[in-house]
Amino acid sequence: MTRQQLSDQIKAKRSFLCIGLDPDPAKLPAHLGRDAEGVYRFCSQILEATHHLCVAYKPNLAFFEAFGPAGIEALARLRAQMPHGVLTIADAKRGDIGNTSAMYARAFYDTMGFDAITLSPYMGKDSISPFLGMEGKWAVILALTSNPGADDFETQKLAGGEALYERVLRTSATWGTPDDTMYVVGATRAEMLGSVRAIVPHHFLLVPGVGAQGGSLADVARHGMNAQCGLLVNASRSIIYASAGPDFAHAARAEAERMQAEMEQLLVGHGIV
Amino acid sequence: MTRQQLSDQIKAKRSFLCIGLDPDPAKLPAHLGRDAEGVYRFCSQILEATHHLCVAYKPNLAFFEAFGPAGIEALARLRAQMPHGVLTIADAKRGDIGNTSAMYARAFYDTMGFDAITLSPYMGKDSISPFLGMEGKWAVILALTSNPGADDFETQKLAGGEALYERVLRTSATWGTPDDTMYVVGATRAEMLGSVRAIVPHHFLLVPGVGAQGGSLADVARHGMNAQCGLLVNASRSIIYASAGPDFAHAARAEAERMQAEMEQLLVGHGIV
Repeated sequence: MTRQQLSDQIKAKRSFLCIGLDPDPAKLPAHLGRDAEGVYRFCSQILEATHHLCVAYKPNLAFFEAFGPAGIEALARLRAQMPHGVLTIADAKRGDIGNTSAMYARAFYDTMGFDAITLSPYMGKDSISPFLGMEGKWAVILALTSNPGADDFETQKLAGGEALYERVLRTSATWGTPDDTMYVVGATRAEMLGSVRAIVPHHFLLVPGVGAQGGSLADVARHGMNAQCGLLVNASRSIIYASAGPDFAHAARAEAERMQAEMEQLLVGHGIV
Repeated sequence: MTRQQLSDQIKAKRSFLCIGLDPDPAKLPAHLGRDAEGVYRFCSQILEATHHLCVAYKPNLAFFEAFGPAGIEALARLRAQMPHGVLTIADAKRGDIGNTSAMYARAFYDTMGFDAITLSPYMGKDSISPFLGMEGKWAVILALTSNPGADDFETQKLAGGEALYERVLRTSATWGTPDDTMYVVGATRAEMLGSVRAIVPHHFLLVPGVGAQGGSLADVARHGMNAQCGLLVNASRSIIYASAGPDFAHAARAEAERMQAEMEQLLVGHGIV
């Protein structure tokens, strides 16, 4: 999916919601079973209930890999079920030397058919480049994450005064373009979105941390939205675990509707729709 | 496998060789086939030919994930075939927020049964902690890698003067112990192994970059060996692709023998065996 197509979807659905699929077996409604098939059924019903409200799905690979080959099989079936018009993001946090990253690009873009993959920047340019330069495919690079550990290295100051995450943005923005690169920037540090936008004004930002992790959607929009929106705000647990009972899909839809309505107001307020 | 058991294996086999399994389908001998089954057959014969010469195997997940569920199935069969007395390292470069890293720990330690997994430190402590504190299990944290991109961020200087990889070592060494943490330090920068040893004198270092990438084993031992050896030197392509013909396993054994013999001399020279 190209940048233009994604922007068009945001306007059509009046939503910049990304739904994260992190199906923890311990949290699945008991009637579904807690094996790979249960995970498949759970996510499949979430997809069915929410696909008109979001512009992206982001399955988290760990929760599928935990089941071995059966988990990857379940993920492949879910990927096949994701409708056209939704950006599919493999939340895999990969990154390795060039020849290995090329193999990961094959695994996620070709074998699994995802549009996008999250990547760790630690190993530098040759670990990211194999994911760039293909129309409609996206490298989603970790910049500033929403977890407590972000302060261990990401926000540390480099000689010269900028933080590591700022250097990651500034350097990696020269490897690709806003048409093949996005950045992960956590909502729990919404005030830092301003400094991010100063460095990468045109890139899409994938923003986790709204919902269960406590970030505010209005703050994210105020600091991070650009003229084409330029945001994908991810919510996982607050949507997929909105109810632990048999009505989980209905509850997920209700929570996604609530977020979509709030997003629509923000898009209107910023003159985007 | 505990640190003591690993040190005992090094002395018994007079080797600190780790063999990397990066089975690129384009490089497999044609008679094996180039699907997941061909990858399995290739690696299986490498295991059979070399297991008495090395103390660790390090399959690279990308080369298995590229085949989807069938690739993970092949990896599981290979893991089951790795003998006791060899450290099994999943070269996966994972790392995510705490609850997700806990799921990756389950995937690699429990479901797949690996002893160790490589991890990217970018996201900080809560991304690494779920892999620590289990006897005989190892977090192998990227510090200074052997690829060109290492200069983009890893060797950049922080305010105060130390390089990012030095900060990663110093900080993450406080999260675990030399009994559950190892570090990846590339052989192509052997002169930097001295600064690494000054920060983490007792930790095992997993050293890629000898062989196809051009690093020297003698330099690695000079700068990186400690009193218990404390090194796992990885070779992948120079061993597994030693021949592209039907004699590939024989050629792999010959190259592993050559490296083991050189390692034995270094272990004797350092008074370890």
